[in-house]
Amino acid sequence: MKLSELGEFGFIERIRQVAGSAPGVVVGIGDDCAVIEVPAGQRLLTSNDLLIEDVHFRRQWTDMYRLGRKSVAVNVSDVAAMGGAPRHLYLGLGLPEGLQVEELDQFLAGFVEAATEYGAALVGGDTCRSPGPFFISVTVEGAVPEAELVCRSGAAPGDAIYVSGTLGDSALALRQLSQGLVPAPELARRHHDPQARPTLGRQVAAAQLPSAMIDISDGVLADLGHILEASGVGACLELESLPLSAPFRKALQQDPALIELALAGGEDYELLFTVPTEREAWLAKISTEVPLTRIGELTAEVGLRISDAQGRPFCLSRGGFNHFAGGAQK
Amino acid sequence: MKLSELGEFGFIERIRQVAGSAPGVVVGIGDDCAVIEVPAGQRLLTSNDLLIEDVHFRRQWTDMYRLGRKSVAVNVSDVAAMGGAPRHLYLGLGLPEGLQVEELDQFLAGFVEAATEYGAALVGGDTCRSPGPFFISVTVEGAVPEAELVCRSGAAPGDAIYVSGTLGDSALALRQLSQGLVPAPELARRHHDPQARPTLGRQVAAAQLPSAMIDISDGVLADLGHILEASGVGACLELESLPLSAPFRKALQQDPALIELALAGGEDYELLFTVPTEREAWLAKISTEVPLTRIGELTAEVGLRISDAQGRPFCLSRGGFNHFAGGAQK
Repeated sequence: MKLSELGEFGFIERIRQVAGSAPGVVVGIGDDCAVIEVPAGQRLLTSNDLLIEDVHFRRQWTDMYRLGRKSVAVNVSDVAAMGGAPRHLYLGLGLPEGLQVEELDQFLAGFVEAATEYGAALVGGDTCRSPGPFFISVTVEGAVPEAELVCRSGAAPGDAIYVSGTLGDSALALRQLSQGLVPAPELARRHHDPQARPTLGRQVAAAQLPSAMIDISDGVLADLGHILEASGVGACLELESLPLSAPFRKALQQDPALIELALAGGEDYELLFTVPTEREAWLAKISTEVPLTRIGELTAEVGLRISDAQGRPFCLSRGGFNHFAGGAQK
Repeated sequence: MKLSELGEFGFIERIRQVAGSAPGVVVGIGDDCAVIEVPAGQRLLTSNDLLIEDVHFRRQWTDMYRLGRKSVAVNVSDVAAMGGAPRHLYLGLGLPEGLQVEELDQFLAGFVEAATEYGAALVGGDTCRSPGPFFISVTVEGAVPEAELVCRSGAAPGDAIYVSGTLGDSALALRQLSQGLVPAPELARRHHDPQARPTLGRQVAAAQLPSAMIDISDGVLADLGHILEASGVGACLELESLPLSAPFRKALQQDPALIELALAGGEDYELLFTVPTEREAWLAKISTEVPLTRIGELTAEVGLRISDAQGRPFCLSRGGFNHFAGGAQK
């Protein structure tokens, strides 16, 4: 069925039927605004992310169901990065001609499924036809207890740097797709259906372990760089300690230059956080859903240094992802 | 200057420098999320609206400064419709190739100026290049005291129907633009730089006068229709009582069919609210920034009837704006 046959309000009703609800939602879809009760002692966290066809995704490389899931994950990841729990999602859709209602149903199914997994509900948004590409704008609201908020600016020299999961898998999958290759299933999943880490973010924030935290969306170098800038510190990273998956290590054996994807590739959606050394012992006591790896430490001297297995300085040929330049999807 | 020369983070820094701050903002632009303190006893109101080039606006008909102002107004209007005060804005921008940094500076100047006028601050968002049209996604958060929240669903038979300002001006300007005519300045202003009504919305909500309220974005018939549906009531509108501006009346004398623009034209951004008759006397005591007009009343019989000056039924040739069909900007 064509969207124009269903009409805007028909589509909104379709969304309302699948959206569900969540604690704290006084009014959901169907009024001028969603109405939310924020519990006393909690801070509201809000973030907005765009996903644009042929910039962030290609419809021939993914499917609408996984695109719906990913649209949630990339937003939830921002709430996780401040120690919060995601609660409410607002979905703005610019829909190109020719997109079928059945495709949108798949997108919504993925979106609502991922939202539910993260404990959030779809409570508002806007839909409109697009004369160009498929545009997705997601706004997420989350909550964090006042004392457990983690910002980018609290890091200090000597703090250890930790990351969750493995790095570079998504960027490697994208590289392979753009070369006409078929990525290994584990790599493809990391790119098309990434997992945000709000449970981990809440765990470490509730234990008040991180001095600063960020999610890795533009590559570990760029995102660590934001912490360094906000906190006024520098860092030393150990190349050998970067956590890499088995398929990534396999590809790296063929082409050692791929290590740059683990440093500057983007779309990992893992958490990077810094921990004062006196709290590192507590970190080991937390049972997390995903492994944590110490990849370096902060320094009083500003700047970001990387050393290889022999302790020699490692230089990178390029920086992080520039959303205004060509970009990797082109 | 081209955007690609400035880079994504250069542009975000540019936004941060003009964005200002607002009460309740713990962390603004520059972390993974904005962090907000919602005062006790207040409900959070959130809405998201898209503005898409060649659907909602044409760059040859407007300028970037007024487009920035309008992007704020259409969102603030949703908060006003529930009795709330706008507080925080999140701006998502999909930027087409060729857009100059100077044009974006004008857009931002209009956006921040309008936000400040409404008492809101720009505290977050996302920017990305667009391979198609210029896309604007705005999310607004507002606050309303718990007891003063006004929904669409509280209307009852016998309630009087009021609207603020005048109707049809924006739609008439758009009609004239699409015919290659130059609208009168008052009409052009209503279309390119509409005024949202949060002060009025707060006034009537604080006095607990409306039983239901909505903003008129899709035409008075469509938006009144949402109240009727949510409240399970009907309505009688008096065609003669519709508030019309002097330039609109002048055009109407030439072409009586233009009355449909006042009923179904869209983009008025006035408030429509229903008032129980016993509270109407209180309404007259409120000094408002904009005139209020009684245009009809609610009925127990469902459906929407319009009567002309002679009391005869008036039939409309078309419904409200369908965002998925051709749309008036084409």
